[in-house]
Amino acid sequence: MGNIFQERVETLRNLMRSKGWDAVIITGSDPHSSEYPSERWKQVRWISGFTGEAGDVVITLDHAGLWTDTRYFIQANQQLEGTGIELHKTRVPEQVLIPEWLERELGDDCFVAVDGLCVGADFAATLPGTVVSVPDMLSRFWEDRPQIPQTPIFTIDAGEPRRSKFARLREFIRSNGADAMLLSSLDQIAWLLNARASDIEYNPLIISYLLVDQKSIDWYVVRDTESDAQTEASFSILEADGVNILPYADAALIGSSFEGSILVDPSTLNYDLYRSLVTSGNPVIETSSPVDLWKAVKNPHEIEGMRKAHLADGLAMERFLYWLEKRLEGGAEISEWDASVKLSELRSMIDSYRSDSFETISAYGPGAALPHYVTPRSNAPILRTSGLYLCDSGGQFDYGTTDITRTVPLGRCSALEREDYTLVLKGHIDLAMAVFPAGTPGCRLDALARGPLWRSKRNFGHGTGHGIGFFLGVHEGPQDIRQNLNSIALEPGMITSNEPGIYREGKHGVRHENLMLCVSLGSNEFGSWLGFETLTLCHFDTAAIEKSLLDRDEIEWLNDYNETVYRSLSPHLPDEIASWLREKTLPV
Amino acid sequence: MGNIFQERVETLRNLMRSKGWDAVIITGSDPHSSEYPSERWKQVRWISGFTGEAGDVVITLDHAGLWTDTRYFIQANQQLEGTGIELHKTRVPEQVLIPEWLERELGDDCFVAVDGLCVGADFAATLPGTVVSVPDMLSRFWEDRPQIPQTPIFTIDAGEPRRSKFARLREFIRSNGADAMLLSSLDQIAWLLNARASDIEYNPLIISYLLVDQKSIDWYVVRDTESDAQTEASFSILEADGVNILPYADAALIGSSFEGSILVDPSTLNYDLYRSLVTSGNPVIETSSPVDLWKAVKNPHEIEGMRKAHLADGLAMERFLYWLEKRLEGGAEISEWDASVKLSELRSMIDSYRSDSFETISAYGPGAALPHYVTPRSNAPILRTSGLYLCDSGGQFDYGTTDITRTVPLGRCSALEREDYTLVLKGHIDLAMAVFPAGTPGCRLDALARGPLWRSKRNFGHGTGHGIGFFLGVHEGPQDIRQNLNSIALEPGMITSNEPGIYREGKHGVRHENLMLCVSLGSNEFGSWLGFETLTLCHFDTAAIEKSLLDRDEIEWLNDYNETVYRSLSPHLPDEIASWLREKTLPV
Repeated sequence: MGNIFQERVETLRNLMRSKGWDAVIITGSDPHSSEYPSERWKQVRWISGFTGEAGDVVITLDHAGLWTDTRYFIQANQQLEGTGIELHKTRVPEQVLIPEWLERELGDDCFVAVDGLCVGADFAATLPGTVVSVPDMLSRFWEDRPQIPQTPIFTIDAGEPRRSKFARLREFIRSNGADAMLLSSLDQIAWLLNARASDIEYNPLIISYLLVDQKSIDWYVVRDTESDAQTEASFSILEADGVNILPYADAALIGSSFEGSILVDPSTLNYDLYRSLVTSGNPVIETSSPVDLWKAVKNPHEIEGMRKAHLADGLAMERFLYWLEKRLEGGAEISEWDASVKLSELRSMIDSYRSDSFETISAYGPGAALPHYVTPRSNAPILRTSGLYLCDSGGQFDYGTTDITRTVPLGRCSALEREDYTLVLKGHIDLAMAVFPAGTPGCRLDALARGPLWRSKRNFGHGTGHGIGFFLGVHEGPQDIRQNLNSIALEPGMITSNEPGIYREGKHGVRHENLMLCVSLGSNEFGSWLGFETLTLCHFDTAAIEKSLLDRDEIEWLNDYNETVYRSLSPHLPDEIASWLREKTLPV
Repeated sequence: MGNIFQERVETLRNLMRSKGWDAVIITGSDPHSSEYPSERWKQVRWISGFTGEAGDVVITLDHAGLWTDTRYFIQANQQLEGTGIELHKTRVPEQVLIPEWLERELGDDCFVAVDGLCVGADFAATLPGTVVSVPDMLSRFWEDRPQIPQTPIFTIDAGEPRRSKFARLREFIRSNGADAMLLSSLDQIAWLLNARASDIEYNPLIISYLLVDQKSIDWYVVRDTESDAQTEASFSILEADGVNILPYADAALIGSSFEGSILVDPSTLNYDLYRSLVTSGNPVIETSSPVDLWKAVKNPHEIEGMRKAHLADGLAMERFLYWLEKRLEGGAEISEWDASVKLSELRSMIDSYRSDSFETISAYGPGAALPHYVTPRSNAPILRTSGLYLCDSGGQFDYGTTDITRTVPLGRCSALEREDYTLVLKGHIDLAMAVFPAGTPGCRLDALARGPLWRSKRNFGHGTGHGIGFFLGVHEGPQDIRQNLNSIALEPGMITSNEPGIYREGKHGVRHENLMLCVSLGSNEFGSWLGFETLTLCHFDTAAIEKSLLDRDEIEWLNDYNETVYRSLSPHLPDEIASWLREKTLPV
């Protein structure tokens, strides 16, 4: 006893008994189905102590469980010790997901309480028994629960005026025979409004809802009356474009204040808001939001910005790699954490830097074998002058977002390290060189990156590529390059990562990641052709390459790429770094 | 006027007027959703003159249309001339399929008549208005309409006793909470019964239905009382294993004679039978039949048989290719049709040969540019001593089924022919060499075969691989290797074709096809691994190879394969053919 999480679970059980609930579900999400919630909605951490990025807790009167996936099994086992909360594994063949588990345990005649704000309408529909929605359920127990963040709001030039984006959405609403659409995804709202803030760490988002109809744009956003000057100025700009600024809490009243049919995307809209619309009597039409696809296809201004971001980011990366090599040569003791701090520092000196785009993974040796390693702030492992160091990082700039992984040989590498390093690079190159017919979804290209690994019976457990926003989320859909069969086709203007890897528990990890722009390669008698143009500019270290494993065209690609990196970056680097980079980018 | 098809359409319209029907649909299928129907059900040919393998006709009072896909546009345009029937294109982006077209033309308040026997229950459910089922609708007009075929039935050893297969199906029925399952797919029935006939050209099938419950196996099959001795003997064998032989027509009475819940697969069960079950009051449970997957995973006996078939088939192929080369060298005039006849002749001399497994595609030059070319019986093009000859053929043997395509350089080839020949072979080899994790669906491997073509902006419009039966259909599911996202995983024991191609209208066509057995390659820390073992034994001609387009490992695969072909076949060939094959299989 005495474990604080055990106490919290018991407190909740008292409430359950008094209300007659058989189960309570506490999800890891927020009212906007965000991938990363702000502090206020780290409810799973509050109830269980688990800090992984994906996980939901279910409490019944005689059981408490955390559902999380393969990435977090080790972490969950450690963090749940002593809490009485048991781990339920997902993304494994024998998985029993929450709805099925509840039905098995409680049958159909039960009461399941959820914080309806933090549960998707789609998910709620799969639950057995009667679903009881209790908005902000934990607020009654959670002392000092953080408020909804209210960071300064600013507008940006995103290459397409917000009025043009509104017109696109209004046309979509019309063509779906509806009167309005309610959006709750924060990245979709930020994209539509050409507005940003930093309500969520690493993500330049504004916690809000948006209701669009043919006459008005109602934006439900939390900002105190005495908000900062920048926010006030942004509000004026938005109002001039027809956006009504309304209190965030009033979104709950849309059902009663609006009259007409409303489009919603039940995969992102929360259950509470969904229910309030349905019970209001307004016709609710379920659809997929078109904004995700619009947002994924970058316009020329965004592409230009992304190029600029990658040039600046590449310079920071090369300064970092130079610093790392020289300091280690000089005998300095550098920990994974030190390296990560140095890289953020260099990146933060870039013009219009806003934040890192996610928490840097700075991992040496065995740490790098965990694809979602979290570098410890204290007592972080020290980099040695042999083996592989993996660094996955990125930045948010007003003109773009970056995401890059380099695996760096810090000295002598074993034969296995060299083989893994080269085969992952081979897969990366084969995908980068791909040419494919228009209409091809990314899942059909995934085997190009994995094929060289598969041939020697190696593989990796994560996706090969994810979309990325223009000064927005570092992971965005709807396209991807993965094992899963996703039918969304790659289109010119989409930007997707290319990041195959190999992870050997207790030994080392390799990942090579660039961002690639999908481009048109013209048409011929066989159809229209697409390919990739790599945006990321930072050399691949050739010291760990086992040349015999690469084909002629792969070697050519590598030499061309490193040469492009040198030519693009060297004019902007101090002489000593430029000459170092010259050495680093000599052809293999 | 005077066109016989126009007259037939008008006759049908008279019936429509007298009955008050707004539309009649005539499908290209039979009551068993067969890929190839027997003569009796070539109803689309009877009404329209169109002989393509896929097509449906819709007749309204003021329009008659044929719906068919890209493969048959040219043919349909030719054959429909003067019939008044218009071509509606499918598998094109702008396609309007029959249900949608009917709804657009007639709205929801209409009567649509179908021959309910020849329309799937799934399809009927998508039609607008009131569906009127008129079994054998065309019999009232079609003089001399062929009867249902009654070819001799024989039983085979398929490595698993039929009683064992019945037990599997009964377990499936139990686990689905049902009392019985009604099967109508002819290949599933033949597989379950270990019985064959030749009711459909090229397909060793028996037109019948099968009702399986926990006590009995009722087989509804058309055979006259005075049927042949082989059939009688087969019936005795089947009866000894608990199969009741019942008249085919009595399948219509299942609804009234059976009591209990019945599993059906609405994707294959015809609408008439489906409706009779539903209206009988028996609970009808829709499911996918598990037999397709069971059938696709070959047992050791079947694999052994397939190997034997491929050895014999390879010998016939090599005799054919030797004959072809020597005759052309000798100055003989050989037409596409002559070559096809010669090949069938050589194949028919193989022990236990039953028939070809499909109509041989024997195509020289421009003809080969049509992937579904039909070699004309008269005035077939003459083979010349330059350029490429394509031959796609196969056989049905009691112990297996074959399907092979070879593209043969008959002399000097152009640079483009050599490039296409080599790139298709490169794609074929890359797929043949694939290693992949257990659980991978074929669609994820498709890019391995297409990648080398895509890189030079070439492609082909058909699938890369289809499943194949054990002395059954030459095309079978549920697995495939295609552009379409099919989530069925490849499993050890599955046999799939590997047949990339390139087709250049008016010039030439290249396709290289082998059958491959999926095999286990063991497990390691990264999971379980699968790969392919090529079953087909016939050399790839190296004369048209542009070696510089192949990587080292691809050349190695090719040399190994040709060497295996030589070593496997030469002991069984006459000396002069063996020495010729030695020359043909020397390493490149």
